[in-house]
Amino acid sequence: MVEGLKTVTELLHSSLDVQQILVDRDFDVPAGNTPVHLISKQEMARLSSMETPPGILAVAAVPVYSPVSFFSEASGPVLALDGIRDPGNLGTIIRIADWYGIGDILLSEDCTDVYNPKCLQASMGSFLRVRCHYGNLQELLPSTGLPVLGCTLRGRNIREFALPERCVVLIGSESHGISDHLMPLLTHQISIPRFGKAESLNAAIATAIVLDRCVH
Amino acid sequence: MVEGLKTVTELLHSSLDVQQILVDRDFDVPAGNTPVHLISKQEMARLSSMETPPGILAVAAVPVYSPVSFFSEASGPVLALDGIRDPGNLGTIIRIADWYGIGDILLSEDCTDVYNPKCLQASMGSFLRVRCHYGNLQELLPSTGLPVLGCTLRGRNIREFALPERCVVLIGSESHGISDHLMPLLTHQISIPRFGKAESLNAAIATAIVLDRCVH
Repeated sequence: MVEGLKTVTELLHSSLDVQQILVDRDFDVPAGNTPVHLISKQEMARLSSMETPPGILAVAAVPVYSPVSFFSEASGPVLALDGIRDPGNLGTIIRIADWYGIGDILLSEDCTDVYNPKCLQASMGSFLRVRCHYGNLQELLPSTGLPVLGCTLRGRNIREFALPERCVVLIGSESHGISDHLMPLLTHQISIPRFGKAESLNAAIATAIVLDRCVH
Repeated sequence: MVEGLKTVTELLHSSLDVQQILVDRDFDVPAGNTPVHLISKQEMARLSSMETPPGILAVAAVPVYSPVSFFSEASGPVLALDGIRDPGNLGTIIRIADWYGIGDILLSEDCTDVYNPKCLQASMGSFLRVRCHYGNLQELLPSTGLPVLGCTLRGRNIREFALPERCVVLIGSESHGISDHLMPLLTHQISIPRFGKAESLNAAIATAIVLDRCVH
């Protein structure tokens, strides 16, 4: 379920199967054959996940993506997320991945659901372009055949480290970092240099800075 | 008002004037002469701004900072924010500034209040180290005597632009960018290169990427 004219329009232009559109007033929306139902403002307020409902929402089928074949993929890093539980953070990360042209994200099974409304909202439509693959990272990471760069607080300075052209960038959860059972799979630990006193950066911020250094 | 044992402890160790501490059970907190009051869990739930109250909060006086003298300040960029209204975003930006060792932020008067509980929470204690100065940016920006770099969607690629050692980095609001009346004050427009299809990045993400390129 997505809300707002802009995201609903983007959804209609995507390859996803849009099942219905609900509105509480007239909207100029390119619905095509998708049924549009008029509901009351009270009903909209109950369905909406937003404090100020934009008055239009669409329901689509959750897409099923075929497994990623990393060997045949285009250049650039692959992003992997371990235990990201905050939907706003996950949505922001999907938006960042889209900015840097990353088409696929691997997510551990305890990451929050990408179809959580807060996550979809924070992704600003980018969930339509970035495919999220949930699974067991202990199996998925080695299956890529790529070096695995883990972002930790005690790794090599990312500014001084020659990043491999193709790699997996693994971001851990904010509260626990990268899980112990995944640490042996890292081929490198990298860190963002710190100049002040904040103890850490949030996971989305760390993702942005690392991808900005990785993508050329 | 701040919540949680970690932030309350940081607050007690700061120069701020802590007036009282409220707890709903025993906490091992270095209160010194600060009065500690035991309240019920129901009262705590009413006072708390969090869904799961951590059970300890502290109230401190809002600090008054003397005006910044940028001429005498240490090296590194000055951060200026125009119209950042989301408290979570502002708190995250304060945390990023703290990571990069930035001591002062200039904020337009329509930025959200730094003492909003959501902002304090998102700053993870960094509001204790980063001084926020609200004012009229049209007057404040020229008063710094520094080049003003505005982050826009049509500026020079930040990776290819030789950033001045000392400058003001101006970040606009997510929905409207930098205000029209501030545009003539920019000495340079800079942009973060985009490789994919997301239309924009959120203000905190943009701040992080720009500061990561500016601070050495």
